Amino acid sequence: MNPRKIGVTEVALRDAHQSLMATRMAMEDMTGICEDIDKAGYWSVECWGGATFDACIRFLNEDPWERLRTFRKLLPNSKLQMLLRGQNLLGYRHYEDMVVDKFVELSAENGMDIFRVFDALNDPRNLEHAMAAVKNVGKHAQGTICYTVSPLHTVEGYVEQAGRLLDMGADSIALKDMAALLKPQPAYDIIRGIKETYGEDTQINVHCHSTTGVTLVTLMKAIEAGADVVDTAISSMSLGPGHNPTESLVEMLEGTDYTTGLDMERLITIRDHFKEVRPKYAEFESKTLVDTNIFLSQIPGGMLSNMESQLKAQGAGDRIDEVMREVPVVRKDAGYPPLVTPSSQIVGTQAVFNVLMGRYKVLTAEFADLMLGYYGECIGERNPELIEQAKKQTKKEPITCRPADLLDPEWEELVEQAAALEGADGSDEDVMTNALFPGVAPGFFTTRDEGPKSVGKTKEQLEAEKQAAKEGASAVREPITYRVSVGGRSQTVRVEPA
Amino acid sequence: MNPRKIGVTEVALRDAHQSLMATRMAMEDMTGICEDIDKAGYWSVECWGGATFDACIRFLNEDPWERLRTFRKLLPNSKLQMLLRGQNLLGYRHYEDMVVDKFVELSAENGMDIFRVFDALNDPRNLEHAMAAVKNVGKHAQGTICYTVSPLHTVEGYVEQAGRLLDMGADSIALKDMAALLKPQPAYDIIRGIKETYGEDTQINVHCHSTTGVTLVTLMKAIEAGADVVDTAISSMSLGPGHNPTESLVEMLEGTDYTTGLDMERLITIRDHFKEVRPKYAEFESKTLVDTNIFLSQIPGGMLSNMESQLKAQGAGDRIDEVMREVPVVRKDAGYPPLVTPSSQIVGTQAVFNVLMGRYKVLTAEFADLMLGYYGECIGERNPELIEQAKKQTKKEPITCRPADLLDPEWEELVEQAAALEGADGSDEDVMTNALFPGVAPGFFTTRDEGPKSVGKTKEQLEAEKQAAKEGASAVREPITYRVSVGGRSQTVRVEPA
Repeated sequence: MNPRKIGVTEVALRDAHQSLMATRMAMEDMTGICEDIDKAGYWSVECWGGATFDACIRFLNEDPWERLRTFRKLLPNSKLQMLLRGQNLLGYRHYEDMVVDKFVELSAENGMDIFRVFDALNDPRNLEHAMAAVKNVGKHAQGTICYTVSPLHTVEGYVEQAGRLLDMGADSIALKDMAALLKPQPAYDIIRGIKETYGEDTQINVHCHSTTGVTLVTLMKAIEAGADVVDTAISSMSLGPGHNPTESLVEMLEGTDYTTGLDMERLITIRDHFKEVRPKYAEFESKTLVDTNIFLSQIPGGMLSNMESQLKAQGAGDRIDEVMREVPVVRKDAGYPPLVTPSSQIVGTQAVFNVLMGRYKVLTAEFADLMLGYYGECIGERNPELIEQAKKQTKKEPITCRPADLLDPEWEELVEQAAALEGADGSDEDVMTNALFPGVAPGFFTTRDEGPKSVGKTKEQLEAEKQAAKEGASAVREPITYRVSVGGRSQTVRVEPA
Repeated sequence: MNPRKIGVTEVALRDAHQSLMATRMAMEDMTGICEDIDKAGYWSVECWGGATFDACIRFLNEDPWERLRTFRKLLPNSKLQMLLRGQNLLGYRHYEDMVVDKFVELSAENGMDIFRVFDALNDPRNLEHAMAAVKNVGKHAQGTICYTVSPLHTVEGYVEQAGRLLDMGADSIALKDMAALLKPQPAYDIIRGIKETYGEDTQINVHCHSTTGVTLVTLMKAIEAGADVVDTAISSMSLGPGHNPTESLVEMLEGTDYTTGLDMERLITIRDHFKEVRPKYAEFESKTLVDTNIFLSQIPGGMLSNMESQLKAQGAGDRIDEVMREVPVVRKDAGYPPLVTPSSQIVGTQAVFNVLMGRYKVLTAEFADLMLGYYGECIGERNPELIEQAKKQTKKEPITCRPADLLDPEWEELVEQAAALEGADGSDEDVMTNALFPGVAPGFFTTRDEGPKSVGKTKEQLEAEKQAAKEGASAVREPITYRVSVGGRSQTVRVEPA
């Protein structure tokens, strides 16, 4: 019997550097390896969306649309894949439907093939328009289940959610485990459930992070259950808060009834490339290698460090344990949302407020909106007392409709706003960039001409750092004032490298 | 149905620090956590043997027998486990049978419960006396299969090897994957084969390193195949060239038909303890996180770095690729030994010689001995031409008997040797220490009174290093001479911290 072919989505160009190095990788560190990636035999190459759009204009003075066009050119044989936050697109608010249409059209025109569409609350109403937009432009619409764990989340519930995504016309279902909480057995059960309910030919893609150390096993059981495609990152861009190593997946399947068909020689070339690149961004890396605490607290690593810095800013760095015990309370009151951007920040910040000021003495504006339904529906009932309190505090009414239904058409206004900006080129892409990040785009437009600016260290800088570490503290590299004795007389002198 | 209980051997106290930090962990960094380890519910605690004996006297001025007695006292409810290199004991030559008996007796008297006995060549004749000695003192004799990959190694072959170990009276079989080469499917097949051939109640322990990133999946499939006990290291002492994280194993099994029964609260305490300890030994750590090259080259990481430093010493650091291609040639000529101490060094060094001087222009003394049978038999036929060459070069005859059969009784002589040493206390333990490491023990005996010396950094040193890194190079911490201009006049001055 021929082994069944398992597709692989390589995430090195998007989620891997987003998870490992705060999305800082410059395009110049990716272009040189695209040919090998293009020919390695991946099912798709995730290379855009998520936080990369924001990071491009905020940190790298790089036009994200240009990045997409470059990938399209350099990866002619690959399906390009992006992560899209449903009605939020790549921004942090809901957009009116026509803006969603426009964004999807532009992405497709610039080269995107596969749209992985998700909503942080798993509210299908926040996905359906984006899914329809992708179908309209004839591209691959991947409906996403954000995996989380709570007393209300069940295998059956996830299987039903997959059904709703298929009803939207999803070409495939992504099981997205952003916090590395998905254990092997539930993965097996959910995937079996989807396949048995909706047919064995229902395509299922599995996306796991590796933070808890168990999810390569999860991918194995997912494959045994019938998963069609899994996400991995080349080993030199893997592990920790990132993903499982691509080469390990390939080797793991040897001798089984499954194979990836990936070209190991290419993988080694890709690995060696990023082995050189990764140290350039060391300053952005988290120290976490494996953390099974997440299973107990259900608090993803990024959320924890956020809360810690909030507490420290308030001089309460020692109260993190209280906050960690408060998070489950807040999450329950909010109806058990998955903890992923932006719900993780909303729940986490409210937990910090509760600990510092007393439970629900003050609601953050975002938490109040969450309680009033402005982010959509959660799986569980929200605490009615808190809904009342949110109402009073914000003078806003709770809503039950799809949040985006409250929005008026805004595209024309967005066009006008962009037209007024210095450096904007009048393209729809620029309108969209400004629509998504109105606080950042205007500045970016004025500096765009200067071209991309890498924040990675150069080879020379890394070499100099190494040298400095070797020399230890015996060299002066910045001006410094010393008390020095010359010929028995003590003087204060300033020393600096000549 | 109740889930099947999977035993866990915690390796933090032995193989984890041997693999991650060159066996340097001082006893003072272990004693404080023994109570939690003792009560966590492990099947056994590996804490002695392997390279720890050597490291104790060579680097830590610590009596290894005292270390064993301390563990016995601090882990009263645990089965203590050690790794024993068959007829080599913990040293690097074959010992006469009575010395083997004596070593096992002393280890048992001092507190050892489970002896994992292996031979680098998988030659059963090198194990049988040690196994019998363990049975004689009424302890647990674990017979070991060293897993490797070659055209001659088959699932059936490993199953037969297990049979030979069971014939020796093995209480359990260890499947030992020191190079992280054991993929999920072969693990499944070998374990199924053993269980089906010799009975489902044949106890199988699985030991995997994590270097290639796939072996937690291997443990999953091993468990599904019926493995009874698996080896892991607490997460803060895991991964890279080490082992899979204990907590990840626990979590991985949730919802399956298997459970470890480990106490997660204790595990967290143990994890937090070693989280503090590990940075103290950072200078000994390898940079390798995951490396699937091993599957292609079959050269374990430790062996590679050895060969690299040999090449560099000869000014041929750029010829490592040639050596890596030469290793399979040498391994084939030697009859496909597993690559593990000492065969990895013997094969690796010969490959270096071949590249530098021409293939087999010179045989190393050890490679000649290997070819002549002085280390035992390999699975494959050895190259007859090279046997001839080894004969000529060494003036030694090839042997086919058990190597230790050539040895005369030596215990009395070893007693006399030790008696002559300053600082030796007349105990059999001291005789054994000197017998195992005659080049190191005499020095150790003279300094033993000074007590153990940790090579780990203190908290204060780590703090100071951090501070220094923060201050960067702007501070002078050691006297240094500069050319300095004061008031327009240039002078040479010496600067030092005031």
